[in-house]
Amino acid sequence: MLSDRNRILVDSIKRLLRRGATSHLSKIVNKTHAADLSVVFRSLSLGEQRRLFNMISDIEQKGVLFSELDVDTFQDLIEDMRIEDIVPILESMQADDVADLIGRLPEDLSKTILDKMKRSESEEVEGLLRYEDDTAGGIMVPDFIALKEDVTARDAIESLQKEHSDVEMPFYLYVVDEYGKLVGVSSLRQLVVVPPDRPLKDFMSTDVFSVQTDMDQEEVAKLVARYDILAVPVIDRTNRLVGIVTVDDVIDIIRKEATEDILKMAGAGEEFVETKSIFKSTRIRLPWLFASCIGGILAFFIIDRFESSLLKFAYLAAFIPVIMGMGGNIGTQSSTIVVRGLATGRLHARDIWSVVLKELTIGLILGLVYGLLIGSVAQLSYSMFSLAISVALAVVCSMSIAALVGSAVPMGFARINIDPAVATGPFVTTAIDIISVLFYFVIATTLLGV
Amino acid sequence: MLSDRNRILVDSIKRLLRRGATSHLSKIVNKTHAADLSVVFRSLSLGEQRRLFNMISDIEQKGVLFSELDVDTFQDLIEDMRIEDIVPILESMQADDVADLIGRLPEDLSKTILDKMKRSESEEVEGLLRYEDDTAGGIMVPDFIALKEDVTARDAIESLQKEHSDVEMPFYLYVVDEYGKLVGVSSLRQLVVVPPDRPLKDFMSTDVFSVQTDMDQEEVAKLVARYDILAVPVIDRTNRLVGIVTVDDVIDIIRKEATEDILKMAGAGEEFVETKSIFKSTRIRLPWLFASCIGGILAFFIIDRFESSLLKFAYLAAFIPVIMGMGGNIGTQSSTIVVRGLATGRLHARDIWSVVLKELTIGLILGLVYGLLIGSVAQLSYSMFSLAISVALAVVCSMSIAALVGSAVPMGFARINIDPAVATGPFVTTAIDIISVLFYFVIATTLLGV
Repeated sequence: MLSDRNRILVDSIKRLLRRGATSHLSKIVNKTHAADLSVVFRSLSLGEQRRLFNMISDIEQKGVLFSELDVDTFQDLIEDMRIEDIVPILESMQADDVADLIGRLPEDLSKTILDKMKRSESEEVEGLLRYEDDTAGGIMVPDFIALKEDVTARDAIESLQKEHSDVEMPFYLYVVDEYGKLVGVSSLRQLVVVPPDRPLKDFMSTDVFSVQTDMDQEEVAKLVARYDILAVPVIDRTNRLVGIVTVDDVIDIIRKEATEDILKMAGAGEEFVETKSIFKSTRIRLPWLFASCIGGILAFFIIDRFESSLLKFAYLAAFIPVIMGMGGNIGTQSSTIVVRGLATGRLHARDIWSVVLKELTIGLILGLVYGLLIGSVAQLSYSMFSLAISVALAVVCSMSIAALVGSAVPMGFARINIDPAVATGPFVTTAIDIISVLFYFVIATTLLGV
Repeated sequence: MLSDRNRILVDSIKRLLRRGATSHLSKIVNKTHAADLSVVFRSLSLGEQRRLFNMISDIEQKGVLFSELDVDTFQDLIEDMRIEDIVPILESMQADDVADLIGRLPEDLSKTILDKMKRSESEEVEGLLRYEDDTAGGIMVPDFIALKEDVTARDAIESLQKEHSDVEMPFYLYVVDEYGKLVGVSSLRQLVVVPPDRPLKDFMSTDVFSVQTDMDQEEVAKLVARYDILAVPVIDRTNRLVGIVTVDDVIDIIRKEATEDILKMAGAGEEFVETKSIFKSTRIRLPWLFASCIGGILAFFIIDRFESSLLKFAYLAAFIPVIMGMGGNIGTQSSTIVVRGLATGRLHARDIWSVVLKELTIGLILGLVYGLLIGSVAQLSYSMFSLAISVALAVVCSMSIAALVGSAVPMGFARINIDPAVATGPFVTTAIDIISVLFYFVIATTLLGV
């Protein structure tokens, strides 16, 4: 397994670093894939990272390593490096990866670096920095193959040998008109199977998907995933081809978006596992917990109003946790299924009524099952039928309402274009807590006559 | 946006179906990408699906549609079709997609279909059916380009034109020895840039990643994602090349695994949004809720033991929801961050102590903040310092322990190779509920002297 291999690699590199076995180490480092090295990097201290980095001899490998680092590690790493040593590494990297790093650096540092880079490279990077981070423009690479439609297959292949050696993923050849506007697409594969003197316009496909620079990266990812393509061309407002988004970046986006959704639903906001500072983590979580704190205090005021009933029937309190727990759990089930369904495109905001009705039915059925069970426990413990009925009814109400709220809230938010993942999590759970407690006490005091 | 385009397409197709505008409809259907049609399909009734399907004239498009359907819809759809009409569609599809569908059909039906298929096609499918669904063998395609190492670039290109026209993604050319064992890899791009009479062995790369047929699909996906490759060769136990896994399938796996993790954590098990039957959904959720039911009943017995205290100080009950809620929420935050960190490879099971210590510290800090806040509410409401202190202390304990349990449980499970996503969700929340209630009553009764 990958993770086993990582562990072995991390262990042996750490051991060699401790022993100072420089020559052995540099042999291992220069043999290891940069993607693996970046995993090792995360497990090392800053001092170790610097020593390891200096052992890499190949500038391109240093570049791949840079592009895999998050910006904090990157900044720590380059702190004591000379600009003259950093620049050639950046120049060897893909412009989109450079823009990702540069765009997050303090402005004076990024300006200094851009000034020292080759004009052609820094212009590409600055071009990308104009676009929002999470749009097609922000994630595209400006290296692509664009040819005129009367170029022959032979000439196209020749241009590949001469001009386009730096293109990252040369599977698609885009065909543009004299104004640089996208008119068609062909593939390397077609180039080698057609007669060499056929012009591109004879065999290109004019059904070419493209996206505009300001399209949200999540939409771009969905498009690439749906149509099983390897790259999608990015055009500006005038239909001019300005870059491509490749499938490897799409994979990263899909993973990142899934992580973000999961964390949002858990009320952990933008906290990531790589957030190392305890202070930062605490600050991110604090406001999310505030929702459940306010909810809890509201529940407190509700219960407080039933003090006289509780003084008579203290055991009413004993059922609070089970009623809240059952409601909370089925509410989480419903909201998670709905939020994920919306994210993967399996559910649509317009289906709100059928989805909510389905969830309500499930909540009612499961509420009856567990209401019967928990009501029986109450009956066996206190032999008081009106109490048992109150508890059973409260479970039914709590679970049905929880399924209703858990599905209706994210569906409703999706409908008015608010991210359903944010709106769910702690807010839904808290609302369910309050509603459950209120119903329980109203039902119990009514049936018990207190 | 994609979803807007879908909606418009679904609406107009539904309208035309109602109106019976067959010729207009069949024009639209045959112009629409099969991936889009499959989205439309999900919003239609079975009758509408059948009518729409029959309007598709191109067998290959029917094939793409088949491969996008889940097996339930597929089975409904083919129920009234003749085997003779189904077989040519399946033959036009990729073997891995056919195997996915056939493998999930009732055995007699799948046997009948395989018997009617062309020998070469059915053998490929049967070959794939031998592997587990979620392994490299189960998701690979058996179509790839494998050439001997002394073949020249020119001959390799020629073989592309003649033999390998059915290969799905011809970017990599694998190089095998006389026994069919994988020795290297080259790319279509390299073929066109090297002199035509150079043999593959001169320019192929011998650093070729490969996976064995029984590797878990999640591991395969991680490998493709980490090394930014478009396809990974699959070898059997004797290092013979038997297939490739392509990046489009990897994208599907990454999305599916993220969905599965999210649902497991919410205690919705294997329920998917496309599960249409209420009965099936209910059955899937029932056992997961059982954990929280048992937990709630345990909490009931705990509180029941403090009945005499409650009869004296009924308002003790009013703080149960807020204490449970705060613990539950921070526990969910911690466990979600840990589970996702483990899934994305950012955390390792071996880091258990540092991760748990970090979470415990965060829990303690946030516990102090919210303990102070909620304790103040208690003090303002009842002006009873010992009660306020009890509530505050209970919040601190509940939140610290919740962060501890929420992080330690998934880390511990990962360490003994149990899926941390399953072990989290309802179990952690339930454990936290019980612990919170117990601590609260022990602290309160001690400090209040009842």
